[in-house]
Amino acid sequence: MSIIVLGTVALDSVKTPFGRRKELLGGSAAHFSMAARLFTKVNLIAIVGSDFPRQHVTFLRDKGLNLNSLIVGDGKTFRWEGQYQGDLNSALTLNTQLGVLSVFKPEVSSEQREIENIFLANVDPDIQEHLLTKMRSPKLVGLDSMNYWINTKRKELIKLLKRIDIYVANDQEARSLSGENNLIKAAKQLCSLGPKMVLIKKGEHGVLFYNKKFIFSLPAYPVEKVIDPTGAGDTFAGGFMGFLAGTRQVNSLAIKKALAYGTVAASFNVEDFGLLRTSRLTRSDLERRLAKFKNCFSF
Amino acid sequence: MSIIVLGTVALDSVKTPFGRRKELLGGSAAHFSMAARLFTKVNLIAIVGSDFPRQHVTFLRDKGLNLNSLIVGDGKTFRWEGQYQGDLNSALTLNTQLGVLSVFKPEVSSEQREIENIFLANVDPDIQEHLLTKMRSPKLVGLDSMNYWINTKRKELIKLLKRIDIYVANDQEARSLSGENNLIKAAKQLCSLGPKMVLIKKGEHGVLFYNKKFIFSLPAYPVEKVIDPTGAGDTFAGGFMGFLAGTRQVNSLAIKKALAYGTVAASFNVEDFGLLRTSRLTRSDLERRLAKFKNCFSF
Repeated sequence: MSIIVLGTVALDSVKTPFGRRKELLGGSAAHFSMAARLFTKVNLIAIVGSDFPRQHVTFLRDKGLNLNSLIVGDGKTFRWEGQYQGDLNSALTLNTQLGVLSVFKPEVSSEQREIENIFLANVDPDIQEHLLTKMRSPKLVGLDSMNYWINTKRKELIKLLKRIDIYVANDQEARSLSGENNLIKAAKQLCSLGPKMVLIKKGEHGVLFYNKKFIFSLPAYPVEKVIDPTGAGDTFAGGFMGFLAGTRQVNSLAIKKALAYGTVAASFNVEDFGLLRTSRLTRSDLERRLAKFKNCFSF
Repeated sequence: MSIIVLGTVALDSVKTPFGRRKELLGGSAAHFSMAARLFTKVNLIAIVGSDFPRQHVTFLRDKGLNLNSLIVGDGKTFRWEGQYQGDLNSALTLNTQLGVLSVFKPEVSSEQREIENIFLANVDPDIQEHLLTKMRSPKLVGLDSMNYWINTKRKELIKLLKRIDIYVANDQEARSLSGENNLIKAAKQLCSLGPKMVLIKKGEHGVLFYNKKFIFSLPAYPVEKVIDPTGAGDTFAGGFMGFLAGTRQVNSLAIKKALAYGTVAASFNVEDFGLLRTSRLTRSDLERRLAKFKNCFSF
């Protein structure tokens, strides 16, 4: 079954200990799609500006994405500039230019409206809500956000949480929104706000999954050379949601497998700048690394 | 086979969000022993002052520890005072009184000298070296240290690493001693200094194990109510080394099991102040939680 991803398509400029890159194709929806496309048909809902390079559109289309609802707005493409230092666990944002993102009203075609798997990647909660309301019969809805919205649109975000199935957050966000320092307590508290499942991404420390039936925790795949972690969380979500969208039954085994696929997909993402590695990724790359990954924690 | 643990026996005063306790029995060797005793006969090598409460000696003896080399020195027992806030991941040291620890010269009986499994818990590297030199035929030697010694006795510590099998560090220490931010690189670099194996403890994020043959990584056991994390790392080491000392062959499966036992032992330690929980711990408590723990990451 196919999936809708709402999010950003951006031009990212990054500086890491391994170099500097300017205006790479990026954004939450783009990173998500590179992993999700390996499991299911991905419908990308985003906006770019009139300055968005044509070759990027071709590139995304060649990856098999449905771009019918990729709007070209009148203005500039969303740009993000950031820097990573030390352990590369957190980005320092140097500059953000919203451009057309500030007037984004997502649209979906009548066919897309029927899609049951939806991922609301990090954008303004009002935009996320706007899209969700358009959908006819949401079955599995995931949502990611960020500290900026937790601080500035807390009410809107909390209202939206009642309508989703899976809340995806990093550890800082989970602590900030729940008011709990302990991550298990934080996950529990977030679950009580509406979502059936909470997934806390911890970067190099792996992932924690919570629902009322079980807690599941995986380490990260050990990557020695982290070149650029931009989009790793979105790639994780793409592998996770993509796998679930492609599976018939969302039971505990499917969730565990989905978390492992997400982890492995994210490990490829950090091995090169932007989408360079994940855009070349194949399902068999994923399977091979998944087998290795299992050996890292199974006995 | 029995094990020697060299380390501290201390009087710990702690303040955590769950309360305040004064002069609890603690110290690296004491915490280590509470876990290791469930697998093997533990010989505790440490010093206390003439003010050390008699009932603590009785308590330790009742736990089955061999106290033949627990020296009572002329002076005060080592005292540590610390505080935990927020996520309880790191202690803020408020006060340290070395007392008799500053004149500690460890002794071992002629029987103890034959013991092949040795854990050098966190004390001055010169003291660790002093004990190691006394041992007749060390077979499996583990060593823990801390940032203070990494900064002030780096040379001595690095020299000592050539003589040990397993270096146990937390993530900060591993980064600090190796000069590498990436933990896989850090583990590799530390291995090149001598130890066959490197074990990096990451608190609530679990553990990373590295040797030339494999990388193994486990999440922490999910504990919702962390009361007092003091000694969790030593308890981890006690479960890990204790299991290995009790096993015949230190192969990859034994190492993986040992890491899981260490993780589970540490999870009990944080559930109450000081040694309160681990001193009541039984092997069947460990086994029950180990089975639950496996469900947290196996699929």
